[in-house]
Amino acid sequence: MQHAVIMAGGSGTRLWPLSREGRPKQLLRLFGGKSLLRIAFERLNGLMPPEQIYVITSRQQLPAIAAELPELPAANLLGEPCPRDTAPAVGLAAHLVAQRDPNGTMGVFTADHIIQPIDQFRESVAKAYAAAERYPDVLVTFGIKPTGPHTGYGYIHRGRRLDADVFEINAFKEKPDLLTAGMYVASGEYFWNSGMFVWRIPTILAQYARHQPEMNRELAAVAAEYAEESRAKAVLERFSRLQKISVDFAIMEKADRVAVIEMPCRWLDVGSWTSLAEIFPADDAGNVLAAPNVATLGAGKNIFVSETGHLIAAVGVDDLIVVHSPDATLVCRKQDAQRIKELVQKLERPEPPSE
Amino acid sequence: MQHAVIMAGGSGTRLWPLSREGRPKQLLRLFGGKSLLRIAFERLNGLMPPEQIYVITSRQQLPAIAAELPELPAANLLGEPCPRDTAPAVGLAAHLVAQRDPNGTMGVFTADHIIQPIDQFRESVAKAYAAAERYPDVLVTFGIKPTGPHTGYGYIHRGRRLDADVFEINAFKEKPDLLTAGMYVASGEYFWNSGMFVWRIPTILAQYARHQPEMNRELAAVAAEYAEESRAKAVLERFSRLQKISVDFAIMEKADRVAVIEMPCRWLDVGSWTSLAEIFPADDAGNVLAAPNVATLGAGKNIFVSETGHLIAAVGVDDLIVVHSPDATLVCRKQDAQRIKELVQKLERPEPPSE
Repeated sequence: MQHAVIMAGGSGTRLWPLSREGRPKQLLRLFGGKSLLRIAFERLNGLMPPEQIYVITSRQQLPAIAAELPELPAANLLGEPCPRDTAPAVGLAAHLVAQRDPNGTMGVFTADHIIQPIDQFRESVAKAYAAAERYPDVLVTFGIKPTGPHTGYGYIHRGRRLDADVFEINAFKEKPDLLTAGMYVASGEYFWNSGMFVWRIPTILAQYARHQPEMNRELAAVAAEYAEESRAKAVLERFSRLQKISVDFAIMEKADRVAVIEMPCRWLDVGSWTSLAEIFPADDAGNVLAAPNVATLGAGKNIFVSETGHLIAAVGVDDLIVVHSPDATLVCRKQDAQRIKELVQKLERPEPPSE
Repeated sequence: MQHAVIMAGGSGTRLWPLSREGRPKQLLRLFGGKSLLRIAFERLNGLMPPEQIYVITSRQQLPAIAAELPELPAANLLGEPCPRDTAPAVGLAAHLVAQRDPNGTMGVFTADHIIQPIDQFRESVAKAYAAAERYPDVLVTFGIKPTGPHTGYGYIHRGRRLDADVFEINAFKEKPDLLTAGMYVASGEYFWNSGMFVWRIPTILAQYARHQPEMNRELAAVAAEYAEESRAKAVLERFSRLQKISVDFAIMEKADRVAVIEMPCRWLDVGSWTSLAEIFPADDAGNVLAAPNVATLGAGKNIFVSETGHLIAAVGVDDLIVVHSPDATLVCRKQDAQRIKELVQKLERPEPPSE
C-alpha cells in the first residue's frame, strides 16, 4: 500500500505575529481561507485515501491539527515526543507506518510550501511511488528546477538517467554561496532539494539501521511503546536523547542508492513575510495583498497580511510589512524582516517591551 | 444658579480609525482609560453638581454619551437635531437652560482638549462665573497664553484691564498666517481663543436676539417644542434651516461687551494624531506611546495609538503613525497625516478600496 506522511512540525517565528509557538505557520489561513497544512493534505487528493495519510507534528499542536483535518483518522496523527529535527521524526513515522504495513511504500511531504500546479505535483508523486516500487532499494527524492540562484535551499546534483524521469544523484549540496548557486543554476544539472521523499518502508528502515544504527534502535523502541499511554514519559526521555539532525544529513547523503525525479512545479517556501510577495497578487503600486481588506493612499511596495477582514489602511508608506493578528500588529521595514525573530526573543524576555 | 454646557458634537475623521461617525473623538478612551468627554465632565467637579451640567451633542451620539456619563441626569443630555455649527447649538442650549433657570449663569466648555493643571482651570472658571455675575452685560471668554505662533487657532487681542484678571477685548482674530501669528505672540497682547465662554443667560439671549434675531426666533421655537416627541420632525426641519455659523462669528465678534480671562493652562487640542505627541510620553527613541502595549526594535519618532492592550510591534520604522482599532489599523507616514481624511472619504465611496 502507498502511504504519505506530512511533516508539520515547524514553529516559524519569522512569521510572527501570525505564527506562534502554539500556532505554527502550517495552520495560518492565509491562502483563500485555507492553511498550508490543509493545502498539503488536499494536494494528496486522488493519490491515496485519508486512511493512508499521516501527519507528524509536535505534541502540543495535535489538537489544532486534528481540528484542521477532521477527515484524518485520529490514529494517523502522530505526535513527536519533542522536536529533534527531521531524521528522528521521519524515522519514527517509518517505524509507526511499518507497524501497520511493513511492506508498503511511503512518501514524506512538507507543509511549508505552495506548490503549483497541483496536477503536475500529483503526476510527479505518482511517478515517484512507481519508481520506488520498480527500484525497491532506491530512496527517491524530488528535485525542483531552480528559478534563480537561491542561497537558502539545498541543491541536488543530478547524475545519469536511471529511467524516463528518474535520475541518479551525484551529490547533495548544502546551501551554497551566491556564486556557487549561480554556477549550479547555469549548469542545468542541479535541482533544489524539495525535502520530499518516497521510498519502500523496508528500504528506509534498512538505511536507518545501516547509517544510524543507534538512532534506529531507539526509534524502534519508541515506536514499540508509542501507543501505550503509560509509557509516554519513557518515550519522551528516549526520544529527547536522539541526535538533532536532518534526514538529509543522517540518511540521504549517506544512503546506498538515491534517485531524483523532477517536479516541474513552482515551489514557494512560505518561510518569511517577504516570501509572500511571490505568492500573492500585487496591486498597481506593487503592494502585496495577503489580506482581504486593504486600503491604500500613496503607498507602494508594501506587504499586507491578515487572516481576517480587519481593515489595514496605509497612507504614504513604502516598503513595509504590515501584519495584523487578533492580539498583535507588526509594522516592519522590509529590509529588517530578519530582525522579527530578534523582536520575538525580546518579547519573550521579562523586560520592559520598549527599547 | 451656575450651569455648564459641554459641547460634544465633533466627529473627527482626522482621528480615524479610532474616531468614526458614530464614535466621535470625545469618546476615545486614550487617556488612562478615560475619554475626553469624561475628562471634560470631571474637570467641572467641585464647581457645580451634575444636575447643573449639560452635554449637547448630535442625536445619534446620545446613547453612547449617556453610557459614558451615567451621573449626568437624562434631561441634561441635549441632542442637536442636526449639526449646524456652534451658534445654533450654543443658542439652543441657552434657551433650554433658560427654561429651567431664566436668570442663571451659564458656561460653555469644549470636550476636544486636554487642559492642565486642572486646579488652574477650575480657578479660572470660578473667576469667570464671578466676573459674569459682577458685570452682567459682559460675555466672558477664556484666553490661553500662546506657546508658539500656531496658525490653527483663533486669537484674541486683549484690551484694557476691566478688573483684576479680566480684560476687555480689542478684537477677535481669525486663524492667522505664520508671520501674523508670530507678531501676535511677540506682542504679549494676544491669547488663543479657547472657544469656552461664561455669561448670564438673559445677556446671551439678548445678544442672540440683537445680532441673530432670525436665528433666535427659530431657536426659541425649537426650544419650546424640544421636549415634545410629536414635534421632533418639525424641530428637525426648523433647526436644519438655521445658518451654519460659529458662535464666534455670529455673536462674540458682534457682541456689545466682551471680556477675556486668562486661563494659565497647557491647552492641547486633540485634533489629529500628530497632536498626541504633545500629550503622551515618548520613549528614548522619540516614539510617542499612546498605547499601553508597544514593542520596538530600531524604530524611532513614531506615534503608536491603541485604546486596548493589543500589542503594536515596530521594527526598523521611523516617523510613522500606527493606530490600532478593533476593526481597522492605520499605518500612515507622519507628514501625510492630513491625507487620512482623504482616505476615509475614499473608503466611504463604493469603489474598490485599493488605489
